Amino acid sequence: MKIDVVILAAGQGSRMKSSLPKVMHPVGGKPMVQHVIDAARALEGDVHHHVVVGHGADRVREALASQPLHFALQAEQLGTGHAVAQAMPEIDEESQVLVLYGDVPLIAAETLDALAHISARGHLGLLTVTLDDPTGYGRILRNDVGEVTAIVEHKDASEAQRAVREVNTGILSLPARYLHEWLPLLSSDNAQGEYYLTDVIAMAAESGVRIEAIQPQHEQEVQGVNNRSQLAALERWYQRNLAEQLMADGATLADPARVDIRGSVTVGPDCFIDINTLFQGKVELAENVHIGPNCVIIDSRIGPGTRIEANSIVEGTVVSAEASVGPFARLRPGTELAERTKVGNFVETKKAVIGEGSKINHLSYVGDARVGRDVNVGAGTITCNYDGVNKSLTEIGDGAFIGSNTALVAPVSVGKGATVGAGSTVTRPVDDEELAVARGKQKNIQGWKRPQKRS
Amino acid sequence: MKIDVVILAAGQGSRMKSSLPKVMHPVGGKPMVQHVIDAARALEGDVHHHVVVGHGADRVREALASQPLHFALQAEQLGTGHAVAQAMPEIDEESQVLVLYGDVPLIAAETLDALAHISARGHLGLLTVTLDDPTGYGRILRNDVGEVTAIVEHKDASEAQRAVREVNTGILSLPARYLHEWLPLLSSDNAQGEYYLTDVIAMAAESGVRIEAIQPQHEQEVQGVNNRSQLAALERWYQRNLAEQLMADGATLADPARVDIRGSVTVGPDCFIDINTLFQGKVELAENVHIGPNCVIIDSRIGPGTRIEANSIVEGTVVSAEASVGPFARLRPGTELAERTKVGNFVETKKAVIGEGSKINHLSYVGDARVGRDVNVGAGTITCNYDGVNKSLTEIGDGAFIGSNTALVAPVSVGKGATVGAGSTVTRPVDDEELAVARGKQKNIQGWKRPQKRS
Amino acid sequence: MKIDVVILAAGQGSRMKSSLPKVMHPVGGKPMVQHVIDAARALEGDVHHHVVVGHGADRVREALASQPLHFALQAEQLGTGHAVAQAMPEIDEESQVLVLYGDVPLIAAETLDALAHISARGHLGLLTVTLDDPTGYGRILRNDVGEVTAIVEHKDASEAQRAVREVNTGILSLPARYLHEWLPLLSSDNAQGEYYLTDVIAMAAESGVRIEAIQPQHEQEVQGVNNRSQLAALERWYQRNLAEQLMADGATLADPARVDIRGSVTVGPDCFIDINTLFQGKVELAENVHIGPNCVIIDSRIGPGTRIEANSIVEGTVVSAEASVGPFARLRPGTELAERTKVGNFVETKKAVIGEGSKINHLSYVGDARVGRDVNVGAGTITCNYDGVNKSLTEIGDGAFIGSNTALVAPVSVGKGATVGAGSTVTRPVDDEELAVARGKQKNIQGWKRPQKRS
Repeated sequence: MKIDVVILAAGQGSRMKSSLPKVMHPVGGKPMVQHVIDAARALEGDVHHHVVVGHGADRVREALASQPLHFALQAEQLGTGHAVAQAMPEIDEESQVLVLYGDVPLIAAETLDALAHISARGHLGLLTVTLDDPTGYGRILRNDVGEVTAIVEHKDASEAQRAVREVNTGILSLPARYLHEWLPLLSSDNAQGEYYLTDVIAMAAESGVRIEAIQPQHEQEVQGVNNRSQLAALERWYQRNLAEQLMADGATLADPARVDIRGSVTVGPDCFIDINTLFQGKVELAENVHIGPNCVIIDSRIGPGTRIEANSIVEGTVVSAEASVGPFARLRPGTELAERTKVGNFVETKKAVIGEGSKINHLSYVGDARVGRDVNVGAGTITCNYDGVNKSLTEIGDGAFIGSNTALVAPVSVGKGATVGAGSTVTRPVDDEELAVARGKQKNIQGWKRPQKRS
Repeated sequence: MKIDVVILAAGQGSRMKSSLPKVMHPVGGKPMVQHVIDAARALEGDVHHHVVVGHGADRVREALASQPLHFALQAEQLGTGHAVAQAMPEIDEESQVLVLYGDVPLIAAETLDALAHISARGHLGLLTVTLDDPTGYGRILRNDVGEVTAIVEHKDASEAQRAVREVNTGILSLPARYLHEWLPLLSSDNAQGEYYLTDVIAMAAESGVRIEAIQPQHEQEVQGVNNRSQLAALERWYQRNLAEQLMADGATLADPARVDIRGSVTVGPDCFIDINTLFQGKVELAENVHIGPNCVIIDSRIGPGTRIEANSIVEGTVVSAEASVGPFARLRPGTELAERTKVGNFVETKKAVIGEGSKINHLSYVGDARVGRDVNVGAGTITCNYDGVNKSLTEIGDGAFIGSNTALVAPVSVGKGATVGAGSTVTRPVDDEELAVARGKQKNIQGWKRPQKRS
Repeated sequence: MKIDVVILAAGQGSRMKSSLPKVMHPVGGKPMVQHVIDAARALEGDVHHHVVVGHGADRVREALASQPLHFALQAEQLGTGHAVAQAMPEIDEESQVLVLYGDVPLIAAETLDALAHISARGHLGLLTVTLDDPTGYGRILRNDVGEVTAIVEHKDASEAQRAVREVNTGILSLPARYLHEWLPLLSSDNAQGEYYLTDVIAMAAESGVRIEAIQPQHEQEVQGVNNRSQLAALERWYQRNLAEQLMADGATLADPARVDIRGSVTVGPDCFIDINTLFQGKVELAENVHIGPNCVIIDSRIGPGTRIEANSIVEGTVVSAEASVGPFARLRPGTELAERTKVGNFVETKKAVIGEGSKINHLSYVGDARVGRDVNVGAGTITCNYDGVNKSLTEIGDGAFIGSNTALVAPVSVGKGATVGAGSTVTRPVDDEELAVARGKQKNIQGWKRPQKRS
């Protein structure tokens, strides 16, 4: 089956009060229009994607540039029918056309598939939804045998028609040949002076083309976003679904309403995710991973049995098994923690490879460093990796002991089994098994008076 | 129009289990009674405010002392009618009286305005609300033409009367002359032995004074607070409204249910406010400000394009454009960050003015300091601003480089383009372009044995 | 009254996708089966508890080993009737049997008590619940006078029977003698090939034993957990109840939906608990305690008037009155803070006893330490308590002043009124009133060139 998906993405979205084109606003960290593209990509067949751009056209095009998409420019906003018409020159007579909206982001692939199959049978597939309060929407009119005969706009509807709760979503599919025939016949002779795609429904009915209406599994699939309140509502529904999926996959969530995922998270069995956790990018949790409250995990892989304690931020990091991170740890990109490592409170790591069983428990900065196994890095240790221009490497051998409040001025190395005394500033290499001390001699002075408060 | 607003604020609120007078409990960081006062202040005309105090009278008076309010003391709690009577000696015959309640905090100014206008027309304005479950409330009785004729208390109501879902809120307005006439006629001959303000409704009906009932836009406007569960419910509704306003103003909220505002927040276009953010006092966000998760922002101004990253606390701070703060930053009062400054993780600043493009990226305390532009403050830098009695100033010139793990013992200055070696304790001024080093010489010792675990 | 409580805890719970036996999954930090045991323990009389284990039997037995419980092994899962039968050999004829479920955790003691009393009167006590959507559940059939006559399974029910919304919960009580008689008569001649406990209802009806159906106060009491989504739903309901209790006890909760308690919390009057707080174990808050947002408090006692500021973690700690902790403080087990102490941001304490009025305000690690009163511990102070093998003690006398960026190499003592200069590494004792300085001499070098970026 040949399918041409036409995604309307030209609207201004003035109620968003944003300089970002409306369809670029993200849900779950991904632009709305990308959700639509991704849903359409799941369709089977020879599928082409057309994005009709207008307001902020350059920004939309640029954001989507790396993908195989055909862009059509709608220079003036003259209505949905006019928008679809901009894409038609690229669309074959034999294709099925599916019309979607860049600001209706959560349409499901299954729904699109059903619509495409209706079109493939030569019918017009119409997506409708039944609302508790249909005020303002176009009502679906059906004849005695239940066939859709027309859509009547709210303002034109009789009282009986207004009682109909089934409404038009605007999403439809039909053979391209009909669109090629009907779009040029649309009229802008209406209050808005626009060409409405909806009018093809009446044309289909007149032409004896069967209209098959289906409904989405969830109402949210067809909810459009016109302001940030609606955006937030969809975001919450989307997040709730992701949370349900994590639970179905075997993770315990302390509160499914307080997990946010902007990207993808995979979980092994028996993970625990505490309240108020935020995931971004691609995150993989192995089995039995414990994520404490208020953590942010970005683009990271966490190994089995590892605990990320409260209020930690982990980004671009690979953590092996049975490690312990946090609370109040900040792992930055390029951190690799081997098995049974421990990174504690108020510790920052960056481009740091930490060996098995090593510990950096308190108040340290370890950046651009390679740390061996079974190393103890004392509280207040700082790798001085930056001289104002260059970043340099610190290397610490297996079994070394770095005393507290120590500065390691890179490039520098501390050998295997070596010891650095507390309070030292190490500027020269320390050999294996050596003790390095670099601090002032202690003088105790009697009779010294501290500044006093004046009485 | 002359209006006298009488706010009843004498109740004990024993179900709050609090030593704080009930009306002083805050919603959105502001005492309930203050919400009522502020709503009433929005009334146009010659408005006088009377607060009837009783339990905790001194504390309420003290908290509100700076405002133009007349306090009336209700020494004994003898009912709402008695309470209003305490304020009457100060009220002119020609005025309109509006009776409000200090524990019904979220009444809207629009509703008060409507009530005042009813009174000005010589009628009694009665605020009613229609509840799904009216059990316990006084029902509004109306005659055949819909005019209010009386209020019947729940316990006295017939079965037919109990089916009425429109109930009295206790909030009303009427010409002062009627109150002056009727309040002395109230009787305490009832089960509670109290003088009920509600009884003036019957007096109005008897006297042929027209009773005009109106309803508030939101039920929450008339919800009273008798316990902390009700307080929390109103708090949540109030917060949700503030969140909706931020979204209407052009901010994206990751979760509108997880933003708390105790004070006021203004936003420029395209701000992003992540989950679980708390604002206090007066906060201004310029356009394109990004507030990460779990941040607390208090009495601060944040410039355009600035990012406050996760788990940061910012108080009494002015941040210029394109700055980067956090994660895990703690900016205390008196911090001023110029454009493109960067304050990173586990950094505390206080009374610190930081110049354009300067960086304090890690594990530092910078207090009582003036830092020039393009300065790099290394990890673990501490301004020793306190000698046990006095606080002293640290000054760092443009382009200086402070090595890591450095103590700057104030008062002290580091000149322009100067460098301080890592691990130094600087006690004397460093001139422009000088290098200062103040640390012990490194000794490497072979053959030293670390303490061993006994086998 | 003699009561035998039989708790079925043998199910696999495959939809949990867990290696932990289903009944061991926690709600509010306590295994589900323990909730059931605790509810049953509240029954008055001579109560014996039987836990029927099967899947993961060893793990369940081990977890509950310290309690006076009789374990019965159901080696094969042949149905609820079969499960109860495994416990019967230990149960007297004269006893009342109460059948509960380890995966229906939130049953209330009051409900159990009512059931036991029905049984004691010689009747069968049946716990039913009326659902909006009873699909899938066994319907309760009653005769014209309202007596329960049978339970019909959903699949066997007529249309009229399916309209019944009162359903069986599986929880019941009856005299042991009936169970002894009826359980051996159960048949597995059904689709699942299992022995259903439910069939005793029909036997009771046939035998003329009166069936008294009662309903729980809350539907959640009888909700079972088959997957993690249901677990999360019960967790939320449970947490909401705990939050309501805290509010009833006189605490203000900024958001009752964002307080989590895994254990028990007691509060004095006028505590304030901010958003997103997590309590674990046993926590006691005295009056007027303020807990800021995003705090984690574990097994600790907090004294009156103390403030725990935002983003702090407190575990195994005793805090006296009027202390100030955080933000960003991390108090670890063995911390004791006296009155008016102050522990500030990025400070970690462990086994540290801090005297009255002492301050550790910034970026410090104080472990294995005894600190006197009115001590000022400067920013960046580290007690070097670990030499790689042993932990040693640091003692600081009353009124001492520890300069910033100081390392105290334990075992070491600083005397009363003594002063340690900033940047010092103290390895030898400092006597009372002495000044100790241990740092390098400052050299300022002119003409030094920093590394330059290549042009």
